Amino acid sequence: MALLRLTEQIQGEYHYTIGPYSPPVLTANPGDTVVVETLDALGGKIEDERTRPSRALKSFRANPVNGPILVRGAEPGDALAVRIVSIKPRGPQPRGTTCLLPFFGGLTGTVRSPTLQEPLPELVRKVEVTEEEVVWSDRLRFPYQPFIGTIGTSPELDSINSLTPDSHGGNMDLPDVRPGNTLYLPVRAAGARLFLGDCHATQGDGELCGVAVEFPTETTIRLDLVKNWPLQWPRLESEDFIMSVGSARPLEDAARIAFRDLIAWLEEGYGFERLEAYLVLTQVARVRLANMVDPNYTVGASISKAYLAG
Amino acid sequence: MALLRLTEQIQGEYHYTIGPYSPPVLTANPGDTVVVETLDALGGKIEDERTRPSRALKSFRANPVNGPILVRGAEPGDALAVRIVSIKPRGPQPRGTTCLLPFFGGLTGTVRSPTLQEPLPELVRKVEVTEEEVVWSDRLRFPYQPFIGTIGTSPELDSINSLTPDSHGGNMDLPDVRPGNTLYLPVRAAGARLFLGDCHATQGDGELCGVAVEFPTETTIRLDLVKNWPLQWPRLESEDFIMSVGSARPLEDAARIAFRDLIAWLEEGYGFERLEAYLVLTQVARVRLANMVDPNYTVGASISKAYLAG
Amino acid sequence: MALLRLTEQIQGEYHYTIGPYSPPVLTANPGDTVVVETLDALGGKIEDERTRPSRALKSFRANPVNGPILVRGAEPGDALAVRIVSIKPRGPQPRGTTCLLPFFGGLTGTVRSPTLQEPLPELVRKVEVTEEEVVWSDRLRFPYQPFIGTIGTSPELDSINSLTPDSHGGNMDLPDVRPGNTLYLPVRAAGARLFLGDCHATQGDGELCGVAVEFPTETTIRLDLVKNWPLQWPRLESEDFIMSVGSARPLEDAARIAFRDLIAWLEEGYGFERLEAYLVLTQVARVRLANMVDPNYTVGASISKAYLAG
Amino acid sequence: MALLRLTEQIQGEYHYTIGPYSPPVLTANPGDTVVVETLDALGGKIEDERTRPSRALKSFRANPVNGPILVRGAEPGDALAVRIVSIKPRGPQPRGTTCLLPFFGGLTGTVRSPTLQEPLPELVRKVEVTEEEVVWSDRLRFPYQPFIGTIGTSPELDSINSLTPDSHGGNMDLPDVRPGNTLYLPVRAAGARLFLGDCHATQGDGELCGVAVEFPTETTIRLDLVKNWPLQWPRLESEDFIMSVGSARPLEDAARIAFRDLIAWLEEGYGFERLEAYLVLTQVARVRLANMVDPNYTVGASISKAYLAG
Repeated sequence: MALLRLTEQIQGEYHYTIGPYSPPVLTANPGDTVVVETLDALGGKIEDERTRPSRALKSFRANPVNGPILVRGAEPGDALAVRIVSIKPRGPQPRGTTCLLPFFGGLTGTVRSPTLQEPLPELVRKVEVTEEEVVWSDRLRFPYQPFIGTIGTSPELDSINSLTPDSHGGNMDLPDVRPGNTLYLPVRAAGARLFLGDCHATQGDGELCGVAVEFPTETTIRLDLVKNWPLQWPRLESEDFIMSVGSARPLEDAARIAFRDLIAWLEEGYGFERLEAYLVLTQVARVRLANMVDPNYTVGASISKAYLAG
Repeated sequence: MALLRLTEQIQGEYHYTIGPYSPPVLTANPGDTVVVETLDALGGKIEDERTRPSRALKSFRANPVNGPILVRGAEPGDALAVRIVSIKPRGPQPRGTTCLLPFFGGLTGTVRSPTLQEPLPELVRKVEVTEEEVVWSDRLRFPYQPFIGTIGTSPELDSINSLTPDSHGGNMDLPDVRPGNTLYLPVRAAGARLFLGDCHATQGDGELCGVAVEFPTETTIRLDLVKNWPLQWPRLESEDFIMSVGSARPLEDAARIAFRDLIAWLEEGYGFERLEAYLVLTQVARVRLANMVDPNYTVGASISKAYLAG
Repeated sequence: MALLRLTEQIQGEYHYTIGPYSPPVLTANPGDTVVVETLDALGGKIEDERTRPSRALKSFRANPVNGPILVRGAEPGDALAVRIVSIKPRGPQPRGTTCLLPFFGGLTGTVRSPTLQEPLPELVRKVEVTEEEVVWSDRLRFPYQPFIGTIGTSPELDSINSLTPDSHGGNMDLPDVRPGNTLYLPVRAAGARLFLGDCHATQGDGELCGVAVEFPTETTIRLDLVKNWPLQWPRLESEDFIMSVGSARPLEDAARIAFRDLIAWLEEGYGFERLEAYLVLTQVARVRLANMVDPNYTVGASISKAYLAG
Repeated sequence: MALLRLTEQIQGEYHYTIGPYSPPVLTANPGDTVVVETLDALGGKIEDERTRPSRALKSFRANPVNGPILVRGAEPGDALAVRIVSIKPRGPQPRGTTCLLPFFGGLTGTVRSPTLQEPLPELVRKVEVTEEEVVWSDRLRFPYQPFIGTIGTSPELDSINSLTPDSHGGNMDLPDVRPGNTLYLPVRAAGARLFLGDCHATQGDGELCGVAVEFPTETTIRLDLVKNWPLQWPRLESEDFIMSVGSARPLEDAARIAFRDLIAWLEEGYGFERLEAYLVLTQVARVRLANMVDPNYTVGASISKAYLAG
């Protein structure tokens, strides 16, 4: 059970698409821990509040991700268990960035839901991020609640933009992918081929304007395999609950996917009958709206482990 | 500041549509408290687990509501503040009912999203409800977390089915409409004309199968007016947060409405600039998925009062 | 088989909601023909191109409709057959009006899908409408292709804004409701209670900006009853095809409703098996996108009568 | 201006993903004509009506496509013009296939909009296809109206499943991609890298059950370049109209994309002002619902060339 490091230098070129075609940067054994130097979602290109984001970013060049990391023995039909151990900020202050990008976000027309209206003004906010808090302004400080925004395994044939969440994971922007929790991802290509990046120091439900407090990190994960556990969609486990994660448009379909998968999990893993699971979730499920801004929207549906005992 | 009672007897006929055309059953002054005897959403017609819901219910005859209650002095442009004081179960045990209705719910084709597949089987579950818990089964007990499922004021001209949530409130199925919290509703007809009913003893986010633990109650509310506070959509306040509530299809539009309204509230009520509010909500907002089963879906977007001080 | 006239004077007050609560203005026998003086959808309030629409219209005061017209013998469970005989323009030239209303239309944020962007500019275009053409500009003339934009029967209990299409008909903005065709509407209240108005001199598929060439008309319809033909949604028949009409959001649900209903019609009326109808429509159905701008979107799904013979 | 042939033999392995990673099978010069031997969308694996489609098809193995075809001189920012010259059926009769696949289609729950209901029965229909007609049954014959269902150029970095339509084209299932018309596709990778296949002998609007009359063909296309014409979405031109094509979910967003792009085309190519184009399309646009069954839905918005002259 080794401790491996995936530094910026080892990574070299970061990726903007998640698929089977890029050469691996690291190979791990199940049980190994990997420390990953992630870039912020804007590739560090927004250096101050006078920067105009649309000029700093070339099109389709957001969300650089590390990887692919190969896991020995991972074969299609297995699940990759990624335990998030810790997420530490790195780089000089102010190391947190949020901004308004033209025609991107939850309260604007977008390229996929276009209107004839003028875009909102561009705008950058740089903020200090420590392991305790995000210093938003003189008046406002937010607790440091870091998580991995983009994390996924390779599809079999397709290569999916790192901005898009789908059944392989990807840009889910799900705050529950945080230290202490374990994310399960489907293995669809030999070695799983894990990509990750786009960490957020804090994010509200829905990631309203499309850009959370983005920051570069040293993210530590522990990798394990669950053999012969074919997953249709990502699943997640915390100390307190189990969660299925769906990504789709419109948003209700993301929720349907998450709930349908959670029912399947309750059947296979916890002895529930299908319709009993349906009725129980009606009474006690919790829903996390992860994002309503990416090419697919993401929802997590969960149930407390208190209702799974016995 | 009187204590008024709206018993089953005073109510007489319950209503299935919320509008300006039904005669008032009670008139209150601002500051008055009203104790309302609500029926369960199924009109008490599902007496045991052998009942077939589709036979027991005539079409479009779910969600009977009490009202209309007139509030003296309420004029279009005002807001009606409804503080939920308490919700107590009434009637003989087992007084809680949930069920599967054909072509209704979150994981089935419906009349508004029809398919050619066969319906899910019909199914009834009767459960004991006390002021402490919902006794789901030998193995499972859920905490008693009651709230008002359907509550709304009259539109100016339209009369809206009591199953439908919209900008007047209605069948929002929002668990935050619970004791201790205050719901603000737009006044659009003279006297406000408040209707309410459809209380739930517990409900998960999304109300997955479409029927929570429905039960008859004695619900106590306190009515107040906020003069000249024209609301576009319902708003809610707890000790800890403020929330705007949107209802629409698809689900992302319910979320957009809620967030757009919450930004307006932060501007008007708390001195935020518009885009600053947009950025702050991106980092710290919370979203409640109320229902994903009714003719419109409902979302509440909220922000902690911790970020509103000063 | 009388010829009745529903003039502006007989109508008196026009309606903005379609329901069971307004007093009838006319009673017809099955087989009677009625000539109806409709207003334009803007109530004639936009007199020239310098008018600002948002000032001319009070909120929720678009789409005035004539009615309710009672049809003797119409009972819930029957269908009302409305044959559109002719639509003639009336009033002084330029009698056609289109405009941009703030936050309304297919390529702008709206009150039900709000954004933070500024509205598009307001804009009015007045055009001459004759029985041959719409004189759009020096360069462009469009053929006169008139139809009834809003037409519906009363719900049982609800009263629905005249801007909203639903299972009762209403603001479908379906160009096939044109002279020569017959629209079938469900009867849900005694006497059917027909409302109509909002005629368009021409309209593209989808009614993109939300306002077609609106104009006041003398519209002639013939009313008949089909006893014991309970309709879930409006249906339409031309010389060449039969069509079912669905209204919902998102748009795919309007299409699903229309197709599901058309399959039912093929089963009941034309001897198709259900799945055979599904396969045949896959190969030869035609779809009309009526509107993508109203509170519900409307789709007509049709099949040529050539495939129904024998 | 050569005539090239892309036979099954030259093609060798067909592709199920459209991207920059597969080796080219043919290189053409602008002006060249290519005759392509396409497979049917089911890869020819459904041989008779007793075949069970879900067994015959491995998952994600529908829609085999020919290509990539390189076009000399094609660079990012150019458009590739594909003129469809002819589509001829090939292979032994009955060479047309349609079927019901479990959890796929417009009137069933799907993997992206899942429910708990049982799937519809599987079902195969084999039909004779000639250059005149599709022999559906003793009673029914449909005219032969062939088109290319899947056609697209490579994205820059991503590789997109051949079942998915998007801004690169792909599985649009748009009946207007038929002989006599010209499709314009964006060039985003050197040489354009064109893929095509999945021809349909006839298809209704929406492709309701998800499977049209699929058949193997000899499809002849002529390739040309339009230098420096950067397209956001596919465009199409017939003798009578110009059309923009959008693919997205929900369906209204596909329509918005198509209309927004068509307005841009009218501005850049035909001298319209933006809001004038918006108003004109409101009055005379036509909409084709191509598919409402694929991972993205596809809509074509068009305007008659009669309104573009002068």
